[in-house]
Amino acid sequence: MKFICRQDQLMIGVNTVLKAVSTKSTLPILECILIEAQNHQIKLTANDMELGIETIIDGDILEEGKIAVEAKLFSEIIRKLPNNDVTVDVADNYQMKITCEKAKFNIMGKPGDDFSYLPVIEKEKTIRLSQFTLKELIRQTIFSISDNENNKLMTGELFEVTGNKLTVVSLDGHRISIRNIELEGENDPVKVVVPGKTLSDISKILSGELNDMVNIYFTEKHILFEMEKTKVVSRLLEGEYYRINRMLSPDYETKIILNKKELFSCIDRATLLIKESDKRPIILTIGESQMELQVSTSIGSMKEEMEITRTGKDIMIGFNPKFLMDALRVIDDEEITIYMVNPKAPCFIKDEKESYIYLILPVNFNHA
Amino acid sequence: MKFICRQDQLMIGVNTVLKAVSTKSTLPILECILIEAQNHQIKLTANDMELGIETIIDGDILEEGKIAVEAKLFSEIIRKLPNNDVTVDVADNYQMKITCEKAKFNIMGKPGDDFSYLPVIEKEKTIRLSQFTLKELIRQTIFSISDNENNKLMTGELFEVTGNKLTVVSLDGHRISIRNIELEGENDPVKVVVPGKTLSDISKILSGELNDMVNIYFTEKHILFEMEKTKVVSRLLEGEYYRINRMLSPDYETKIILNKKELFSCIDRATLLIKESDKRPIILTIGESQMELQVSTSIGSMKEEMEITRTGKDIMIGFNPKFLMDALRVIDDEEITIYMVNPKAPCFIKDEKESYIYLILPVNFNHA
Repeated sequence: MKFICRQDQLMIGVNTVLKAVSTKSTLPILECILIEAQNHQIKLTANDMELGIETIIDGDILEEGKIAVEAKLFSEIIRKLPNNDVTVDVADNYQMKITCEKAKFNIMGKPGDDFSYLPVIEKEKTIRLSQFTLKELIRQTIFSISDNENNKLMTGELFEVTGNKLTVVSLDGHRISIRNIELEGENDPVKVVVPGKTLSDISKILSGELNDMVNIYFTEKHILFEMEKTKVVSRLLEGEYYRINRMLSPDYETKIILNKKELFSCIDRATLLIKESDKRPIILTIGESQMELQVSTSIGSMKEEMEITRTGKDIMIGFNPKFLMDALRVIDDEEITIYMVNPKAPCFIKDEKESYIYLILPVNFNHA
Repeated sequence: MKFICRQDQLMIGVNTVLKAVSTKSTLPILECILIEAQNHQIKLTANDMELGIETIIDGDILEEGKIAVEAKLFSEIIRKLPNNDVTVDVADNYQMKITCEKAKFNIMGKPGDDFSYLPVIEKEKTIRLSQFTLKELIRQTIFSISDNENNKLMTGELFEVTGNKLTVVSLDGHRISIRNIELEGENDPVKVVVPGKTLSDISKILSGELNDMVNIYFTEKHILFEMEKTKVVSRLLEGEYYRINRMLSPDYETKIILNKKELFSCIDRATLLIKESDKRPIILTIGESQMELQVSTSIGSMKEEMEITRTGKDIMIGFNPKFLMDALRVIDDEEITIYMVNPKAPCFIKDEKESYIYLILPVNFNHA
């Protein structure tokens, strides 16, 4: 095998597939990238058996062939080369020569025969959205998955398609994050749970551009994300996802509208006084046009007032400040609306169209 | 005690003294900042008994007094406040109220009575240089101090003043870094060893501006750095520093001139193949107008050629690539000159005026 390509193109390709390289495997082949040069295409593939990524790079093939190469070493070498033409030349004994300007590297490759290719995915059920939208969807929900492997389904996110709507849901037992977006045309119904790790990995690959599209295909066991030059295949999580609809009652007793940034800064300051161990809540006391926030711990106390627009009743309610901050951090609106029922019922932060809904359970507190 | 000052000014002050706050002390008072408001000055002091820093901040004093406050908590609170006027108000029971806009914090302070003030330094022997120059001096030598506490003197740097010259030296047994700079006027002779930790801490405080000056005062046991608003006092290391002059012979057999950046990139690439454990050298083979660099390890091999201008003999010599890179990283010249004698004698990287001299011992290698 022999090909020539640009260092920056090769680097982008290697970085793309690197997310699917296993780092702590006992199978050395899982720590490799497979490089294939054939049919006028240079293709890089990595597959850790949960997640598989392949990507195409531009270049000139002088001799067809394939080889597996240790991913970390190969990516470090390519990263450190000058931004110029790189020649990769593999001899029959799997010796790989990498040449760029005056630099010459010699490393050992492996035959690619025992490398696991990506599973073939039937392209029946599909949706199409921009890479920007998918990246945003993930950013705005990924923070509330659970990292507790005992609740496997909570470590993933629900992707549900009904007609022209895609709903993405994550939850961890204390809160639920929901994003609803409109899709083009009518789509076949889908309801799958995608592993959180897949979503954070693919999020790093997505361009974030509104003009770059991604096609998503669903089968019973797999999800395939197809971009212009890159394919990502992941296993799905098995099981039936939690029914959340009965928790989403539209009734409320108190509704407040307030400035998001101001609220965030205030809670951020208050958390200084809260140690991981003592888990004190931040207490909101909502009056007619003012909200008082207070925290009181062994370290000290803090009090701050904010102006709000209120509809409904006065209320005093306590929250884990981290849960409020996680939701506020990903909301792009300057003004947000919070709906509350009573100090024991979940509150909702949502916009009018319900393009986002963040449900957060309050916590008990001792009346001061 | 009560005073009002700007949040950003207070933050700068706190960050400045924070370097002298002890983080792992059994004496709680060493983890505090002392705040004193008197004689129209707000002064912050921290002192971990090795290093002491005090700094003045602007503000209005409404009531004189002093208090010690836990440094980490206080700095985090100040950092999170809006950039506006901050009021610090301490009651008789050492309750400290910090108010900024609508945020109100209450934390406990301590009486400052058992706080250790900075030692008083006699201002006899002194030199004066720009903060930029001192910062550069430190950056260009600090990397070759030793972190082995058994050789206490090697963990510091020699500061030697003779007439109008300041020489700063660091060494770790494998290499020596020397910077010579010209001072204004004639100065009293000084020869002291300053702890490396002091130098890296002060380096973070120095403005890096040519127009900001720093006066340095030397006594037998202490060094004092005096800037406009800030004083830093450190203990010195005791003992006689190594005699390095006899190692600095001007003789050489081979002299090469080459591009620094090119050499750095090449060595940087080569180190990819070197694991911490096997310590393989990079081997330079110097010919008439070309230098070949090569590395060969269990991971693979690498070869690269560079154009050079040579005077003297051919030579083949091996180095620990890290030592070469450390020196190259801090040299600002585009072209550098390297002087060599034989494969077992130290090489020198230095400029003509000897404003910098980097001595590096070569390492043995097996002829390929």
